[in-house]
Amino acid sequence: MRLRNIPGAEDMLRQFPTYVNNPAQYKGTWSDCFGNSNPIHVEIGSGKGRFINTLASRFPSTNFIAIELKAEVLYRTAQRTEQKDIPNLKLIQFDAFKITELFAPGELDRIYLNFSDPWPKKRHSKRRLTHFSFLRQYRAVLKQDGEIHLKTDNQNLFEFSLNQFANELFQLRHVSLDLHSSEQAATNVMTEYEERFSNRGQRIFRTEALCKPIAPTDKPAKDN
Amino acid sequence: MRLRNIPGAEDMLRQFPTYVNNPAQYKGTWSDCFGNSNPIHVEIGSGKGRFINTLASRFPSTNFIAIELKAEVLYRTAQRTEQKDIPNLKLIQFDAFKITELFAPGELDRIYLNFSDPWPKKRHSKRRLTHFSFLRQYRAVLKQDGEIHLKTDNQNLFEFSLNQFANELFQLRHVSLDLHSSEQAATNVMTEYEERFSNRGQRIFRTEALCKPIAPTDKPAKDN
Repeated sequence: MRLRNIPGAEDMLRQFPTYVNNPAQYKGTWSDCFGNSNPIHVEIGSGKGRFINTLASRFPSTNFIAIELKAEVLYRTAQRTEQKDIPNLKLIQFDAFKITELFAPGELDRIYLNFSDPWPKKRHSKRRLTHFSFLRQYRAVLKQDGEIHLKTDNQNLFEFSLNQFANELFQLRHVSLDLHSSEQAATNVMTEYEERFSNRGQRIFRTEALCKPIAPTDKPAKDN
Repeated sequence: MRLRNIPGAEDMLRQFPTYVNNPAQYKGTWSDCFGNSNPIHVEIGSGKGRFINTLASRFPSTNFIAIELKAEVLYRTAQRTEQKDIPNLKLIQFDAFKITELFAPGELDRIYLNFSDPWPKKRHSKRRLTHFSFLRQYRAVLKQDGEIHLKTDNQNLFEFSLNQFANELFQLRHVSLDLHSSEQAATNVMTEYEERFSNRGQRIFRTEALCKPIAPTDKPAKDN
C-alpha cells in the first residue's frame, strides 16, 4: 500500500495510547504489558489496520498486536483507534524479520499474514513473509500448536507459501482456494485490500499452518 | 470418461499378456510377478492408459501397475499395449477401495491419481479418491516416504485433497496451482484428458504427498 510520506509520523505515533515505544523491552513480559495472561495474536504487516481493529473489538479476551514496518502506515492504524485506549490492542513499528527480538519462545498463540507483498521476482523471494527464513522466526516465538493464518489474492505467493509451510513441517489446515465461496466466508473478517479486490471478482486464497513440534528424526526439506 | 459398453470386455482382456487375472494372488509377491525387485508405481483410475504406458516405456527400471474399475476402460489401455508383453507394466481390473487386498504393507513406492472423478456433491465426497478413507488404505500399502502424486483440473477436488492429505499427516511437496506454467512442466507426462483441457486454457493443479510415519503422539485431524 502506498501512502504519502507523513513528516514526523514517528513522533505523532507516540501520542496514541495504543502505540508501544521500545517494544523489545516487553520481550517475555507481554502479559504484564496487557495486564492479563490472555492469548496474544499478532498481525504482521497490518496496513491501515481495519482487520486488527475489528478483531480487537470482537474478541476482548484476546490480546492483539499490530506490527508494521512503516511509521506512516502504522499512523493510519493509530488514527483508527481515535485516541481511545483499546486495552487489548497494541501497535508496534518494527521489522518482522527481527520478531525474535520482540517475543520469547512460545509467547504467541497466532500470527496473521494478510495480503503481504508478493515480491514476484524470484530473486526477491527471501523478502516474502512466508519465506522459510521468516517461518523459522515465527516458529521460534509461537506456542506448540500455535497458528499462522495466511490470506492473499496472489496465486504465486499462495503456492510458494504452501510449499514453504510444508517443507518447514507446519501442518496445513483449512486450505481454501476461493475463500469467499467457502464455508469459512461466514466468519471471515475482511481487510481493506481484500474487500476492494474481492469486489472486482478476484479470488482470495487462505490457509492456516499449525506449528507442530519437529521430531529429532524429521528434517525440513532440502529444496527450500 | 464415458466409453461404450464393450460386451465381453473381461474375456477379451484375458488375451493381453499385460493383463493380470486374479491379482490378489500376488499380494506381497509382486516382485515375483515382475521377476525383479524394482520399485512399484501404481496408477489408480488409469483411463485409456496413455500416462502409464508412457511412463512404462520411459522408465524400464520401475514396475508399473494400472488399476481401473471398469473393464471396458481397461480394455482400451490393454489395446494400447498392442498385444506386446511390456514386462514392467501390468493391468488390473479392481476397486481402489480394496487396494489392501492387492498389496502388502510397504509394497508400493508410489501411487498416481490423475484427473480422478471429482464427485462434486458433498454427499458423494466419500467416493473421491483422496477421501481420508482412501488415504488410509494407500498409507497401508505404501512404503515409508512413499509418494502419492495427484493431478487434477478440478479446483474443488484439489482443495479437498490438500486438506485431506494435511489432516492425515501426509507431507505435501511441490504443490502447483498452475502446473503448465511451473518449473515442473518440463518433466510432466500428460494424460489424454490433461492435454485436451490444458489446450482449452484450463489450469492444472498438482501436488505430491509423502507418506511420513505417524508418531504415537500425532493424531489425524478430527474434522475430516
